[in-house]
Amino acid sequence: MTAYNFNFSKVTSQTVEDLTAIFGVSGVSADAEKVEAYSRDEVAPHLLDKKYTADVVCFAENTEQISALMKYACSHRIPVTPRGAGTGLSGGAVPAYRGIELSLERMNRILDLDLDNLTITVEPGVVTSEINKAAAEKHLLYAGDPCSGDVSFIGGNVAENAGGNKVIKYGATGSHVLGLEVVLPDGRVTQFGGKRRKDVTGYDFVHLMVGSEGTLGIITKIILRLMPSPSFIVDLLVPFGTVQQAIKAVPEIMTRGKAVPSSIEFIDKQSMLLTEQYLQTKFPFSHEADAHLILQFEGNDRESLSDEIEKIGDICMENGALEIYVADNRTTKDKLWKGRKSIAEAVWSYAPVQIANEDIVVPTSRCAELMEGLQRICGECGVKYAAYGHLGDGNMHVSLYLEDETPQWKDIINNAKYALYDLVAQLGGTLTGEHGVGLKRAHDVARFLDSTQIDLIKRVKIAFDPDNILNPGKIVPW
Amino acid sequence: MTAYNFNFSKVTSQTVEDLTAIFGVSGVSADAEKVEAYSRDEVAPHLLDKKYTADVVCFAENTEQISALMKYACSHRIPVTPRGAGTGLSGGAVPAYRGIELSLERMNRILDLDLDNLTITVEPGVVTSEINKAAAEKHLLYAGDPCSGDVSFIGGNVAENAGGNKVIKYGATGSHVLGLEVVLPDGRVTQFGGKRRKDVTGYDFVHLMVGSEGTLGIITKIILRLMPSPSFIVDLLVPFGTVQQAIKAVPEIMTRGKAVPSSIEFIDKQSMLLTEQYLQTKFPFSHEADAHLILQFEGNDRESLSDEIEKIGDICMENGALEIYVADNRTTKDKLWKGRKSIAEAVWSYAPVQIANEDIVVPTSRCAELMEGLQRICGECGVKYAAYGHLGDGNMHVSLYLEDETPQWKDIINNAKYALYDLVAQLGGTLTGEHGVGLKRAHDVARFLDSTQIDLIKRVKIAFDPDNILNPGKIVPW
Repeated sequence: MTAYNFNFSKVTSQTVEDLTAIFGVSGVSADAEKVEAYSRDEVAPHLLDKKYTADVVCFAENTEQISALMKYACSHRIPVTPRGAGTGLSGGAVPAYRGIELSLERMNRILDLDLDNLTITVEPGVVTSEINKAAAEKHLLYAGDPCSGDVSFIGGNVAENAGGNKVIKYGATGSHVLGLEVVLPDGRVTQFGGKRRKDVTGYDFVHLMVGSEGTLGIITKIILRLMPSPSFIVDLLVPFGTVQQAIKAVPEIMTRGKAVPSSIEFIDKQSMLLTEQYLQTKFPFSHEADAHLILQFEGNDRESLSDEIEKIGDICMENGALEIYVADNRTTKDKLWKGRKSIAEAVWSYAPVQIANEDIVVPTSRCAELMEGLQRICGECGVKYAAYGHLGDGNMHVSLYLEDETPQWKDIINNAKYALYDLVAQLGGTLTGEHGVGLKRAHDVARFLDSTQIDLIKRVKIAFDPDNILNPGKIVPW
Repeated sequence: MTAYNFNFSKVTSQTVEDLTAIFGVSGVSADAEKVEAYSRDEVAPHLLDKKYTADVVCFAENTEQISALMKYACSHRIPVTPRGAGTGLSGGAVPAYRGIELSLERMNRILDLDLDNLTITVEPGVVTSEINKAAAEKHLLYAGDPCSGDVSFIGGNVAENAGGNKVIKYGATGSHVLGLEVVLPDGRVTQFGGKRRKDVTGYDFVHLMVGSEGTLGIITKIILRLMPSPSFIVDLLVPFGTVQQAIKAVPEIMTRGKAVPSSIEFIDKQSMLLTEQYLQTKFPFSHEADAHLILQFEGNDRESLSDEIEKIGDICMENGALEIYVADNRTTKDKLWKGRKSIAEAVWSYAPVQIANEDIVVPTSRCAELMEGLQRICGECGVKYAAYGHLGDGNMHVSLYLEDETPQWKDIINNAKYALYDLVAQLGGTLTGEHGVGLKRAHDVARFLDSTQIDLIKRVKIAFDPDNILNPGKIVPW
């Protein structure tokens, strides 16, 4: 077994000077406030075990600079933590061992929209929704659709294998990635994949990079797959009397309804009420329904899409839906999805301190048991919860929180969290579906992966990064 | 850099005795004829650089035996080569360093067809088409569809990331793999993934295993994703006057037609004529058309599917189609696909000796240039060719062959092959789209991968297999 080296050198004024030679004066900052701002993501610092700050932040403009940086970092033993928009939810971009924070925000060009190959090639700092827009202008679909898409960078989406609202039909971010340019931890630049729909020449390093959270290489160019945009999209908002009724409807939609919706989103009552309050708006049946589903269907034929929706509506009503609301125009669609995409902020704004935000996954057939267990656990632990997420994928975002202040809040919430983890593991589920392990969950991984899997993660990390210089200390306990 | 150990021990009568203790008397054979039969795949031995034979073949019935085997093999330094049905086209199951050939053919059970989670769990030795059938009986679709599906094993499909006829819509085999049980080279047993639609807990080892050609671990259980079966499937056979017309129609089908067909298959004139001869049958316009496309469309609404097909038919006719043949009943469908799936055998039966079978991929927009270049190269080199394959993915199977016997046949064909490789690389393509590198193409990889990529492949191989005991000598030149 290789020894993993966590002895790093300190950043000195000489380091800053050397980095300036690589990135230019405007490309390096050691300003304490700026460095601190760039050392965070969306995980509240008080929820990590301690405060983490880099020593210096660099702003790359091209691949060559990043290559030079990594060569420098290796030879000087200074860790580098790559960072996209900082919208991550697991501390992936938080520097665990100080050193250099590398911002990719200036690498924000769409390089090529290829209508013949149906691909788009982008730098990592492009905002995800800009890719959706650029494709849509050409009547094409980029099917990645994380809720943070208006602010997240595509580089972060790839590094975390971001999921979002269309995974059930189109897969997570990784499904759309055909090729990557990568700077390896030792500074070598290479390409994995390309504008190719198929490739078995060597191991699938494209998809090993996807979701590797910036620990194996720095992604500097991304080739994404596009597809024809569906002509018609209809969203349904369906309130159900009980959570169990909503959950039970989903497999019937898929099997009896023979439909693969592009979204099956779940919102529990508490999430709905907090969102109404946060957005100062009103959704139908928010007080009467214990759960709402958002279902999205796409098609090129208006009539057959209508028929499909009618059939799905009937299935929902048979399963206890209180009503079917059809959003088929821009205004109602926007309101619906603004609601869905604001839930995280809504819950967060209501419970900003005494909270744990989870991203668990279970086999879809176990969602009912998960929700029953969640209610039981929270009752027993004296913890409130809001649950929402991607029911079609079995991926539930659960916020566990306390309304009343208490010095023991962390212990109380952790009790509930670990009981929930035990339940998830028992149901054949896992720790994180789309937010990543990062720093925040590294010590919880052993509850879901066995020692062999953890050993392999370390071996592969060191195969790519023998100096342990790139985003060290992440994903597993070291 | 780690040193890779290729010094292996010899198999002795003691080894056979020890293996018998693991697999039982009926689970081990050192019979020369049997061992030789199991040391092959569909690559004709005369097309490899020399003759490869294992010393002994073992037949595993369960994971525990394989775990015991690998522990034994490591401690005794005897290489192990796993083998599915032997339908591989790259020598992946051919033992490069003698030792033990491990057949998975007795691990052939469908373990679980889970209608709630829409998954099927199988052992590696299940014939692929049995999975298609088991799913279809429940009105579900397993979308893996390699041409060899009636004989290949699912374990081999996963190990090679087999493609086939439905990749353009559904992705290759890897797209359907949710979880794997794996015996690592040191005998440890672990699980990657599970019945989960999303999972970012650690690196994506599921998809690193897919396509790794049995070099990183032995797959002993596979969880596959199923989906609702479409109600209606229609196939079109469309003859075109020229190859270029057929190629040009494809992007228009996707963009102007707004359709994602489930298949876009290409058959050139020579492939069509040889198939007619082989099957003693007749396809329309086989003499008049330089190329045929097979297009498959699926839907749940008969009428809108008809409209779609009409639209696609119009696009094809505008692009020079000579006629549109619609196969919408069992008989015509079966004939069509039997034709498509027999091409490889047809070409092979016609040119069994002086031949090279290639599996190149280019970006779809470069298919026209590829086909022009292929014609030019073969003309210059004095080589015949037949080309067919998955045009929608840019994945073309090209057989280069000589009709007349000559002692220099290998040189002549290699000239054409390497000129073709150069062209493919220049077009942004790669060596193999679905057949794998294996043994046959290991020395050609450096034409497509740079030294960094080859280095990473070796590092990851050794991270999983530090003893270099599992299927050594494959994928890259060592």
